[in-house]
Amino acid sequence: MDKILIVKIGGKLINDSHVLHRFLKSFAKIKTKKILIHGGGNQVTKMCKKLNLDIKIRNGRRITSIQDLEVATMIYAGSLNKTLVTKLQSFNCNSIGLSGADANLIESVKRPVKEIDYGLVGDIKKINSIFLKNLIDENLTPVICSITHDKNGQLLNTNADTISSEIAISLSKYYIVNLIYCHEKNGVLSNPNDDNSTFGQLNEKEFSNYLKLNIISNGMIPKLTNSFYALNNGVKSVKIAGQSLDEINIKSTTITN
Amino acid sequence: MDKILIVKIGGKLINDSHVLHRFLKSFAKIKTKKILIHGGGNQVTKMCKKLNLDIKIRNGRRITSIQDLEVATMIYAGSLNKTLVTKLQSFNCNSIGLSGADANLIESVKRPVKEIDYGLVGDIKKINSIFLKNLIDENLTPVICSITHDKNGQLLNTNADTISSEIAISLSKYYIVNLIYCHEKNGVLSNPNDDNSTFGQLNEKEFSNYLKLNIISNGMIPKLTNSFYALNNGVKSVKIAGQSLDEINIKSTTITN
Repeated sequence: MDKILIVKIGGKLINDSHVLHRFLKSFAKIKTKKILIHGGGNQVTKMCKKLNLDIKIRNGRRITSIQDLEVATMIYAGSLNKTLVTKLQSFNCNSIGLSGADANLIESVKRPVKEIDYGLVGDIKKINSIFLKNLIDENLTPVICSITHDKNGQLLNTNADTISSEIAISLSKYYIVNLIYCHEKNGVLSNPNDDNSTFGQLNEKEFSNYLKLNIISNGMIPKLTNSFYALNNGVKSVKIAGQSLDEINIKSTTITN
Repeated sequence: MDKILIVKIGGKLINDSHVLHRFLKSFAKIKTKKILIHGGGNQVTKMCKKLNLDIKIRNGRRITSIQDLEVATMIYAGSLNKTLVTKLQSFNCNSIGLSGADANLIESVKRPVKEIDYGLVGDIKKINSIFLKNLIDENLTPVICSITHDKNGQLLNTNADTISSEIAISLSKYYIVNLIYCHEKNGVLSNPNDDNSTFGQLNEKEFSNYLKLNIISNGMIPKLTNSFYALNNGVKSVKIAGQSLDEINIKSTTITN
């Protein structure tokens, strides 16, 4: 089987145009088959503020209104996705931007209302992995944003970390999949204020211990949960890394079962 | 050779969500291979106003600033393109949204500055027709927006009528291409205030005569120029039609050489 590298970017890595430029230049140079998956950094929040839209947070999670979804679709699938694609093209990486609606790539279902109605948020149901495989085998690099749809005409906002693990799992029947989550910190830190406190490795048991001891910050939970889920379902390796692909061997945490 | 239908939509057809819904439902039912190409209606202008961006017009043509381009990319490639795609998916038409940057579909060059600097506007240089053919032959329906790029990292705003004729021409080596421009009027009218004054047919000579006599409005010039250009370069048929695909045989103008 061929190898494929799936890289997820988000947060401050996207907000800083110089960091992003350098990152994309390194990413474009990677010789193996590859996929880029992105969140939106703080661009959606900034645009919502410009448009005077209220931002609703419940239990630390954003509620997606119709207006928020429109802004998210404009930024994720529009300006940001196409900026990433054209930049990669300029580095001779033939990329193609996709949302979950395109070719029915990611079918999701609106999150059921239990205690909280998260609004127009989608939980993933199905990945069209054969379509993705066809693109990849034509030497295209998919650039996937965090907008999905329910196949009934409704777009839905979906967590980019989860999209990354689900896509990684769905492609593990065709490829040896390596997944890397890149963000502004150098991997998983034992002290969030010390960029040199990166764990070299982390397994599931250590994770739950460190979590109880408040050594790992809550913000890392979704990434780590997704990492273990991917490893337990066919993905070959998962790393949580920083803003530089070139330093990945020294500044990243390898997640193990 | 297989037949392919290329449909361009724009203007008020896009602004009115009910008209658009009905249109997409009819479009989805078309059995032959097909492509949808869209402008943005008045959505970009509305968003620019919301964001307090000045709109600059010179010689009746919009000047595209960096901010305008960002808004155009958000709307054309983002919210509008993905809304069209998810709606078509809900009508069981497996569609895929694309800008000119995706898979290097449409390479353009910033319009050279002569008397006027139109800003970030792209003139088309090259269409990646083989990529488009591969998608179409996999039974996908491309939905193409009017954002292109220069392959050096710059997105560019490009006229959707021109994109339609260039794509139609580039595909005429693989398919028998029929091109339809759909807009809010019932084809080309001899009296812009009378919706029943549709020309049944119009050739190039008649067009230039009617233009001199002020019978055809200036707003129709780009569509008609593109129509004749397409017909003279391999496209089988061109129609200028109204808002309803179901009434196309009674409410449209067939363009002839």
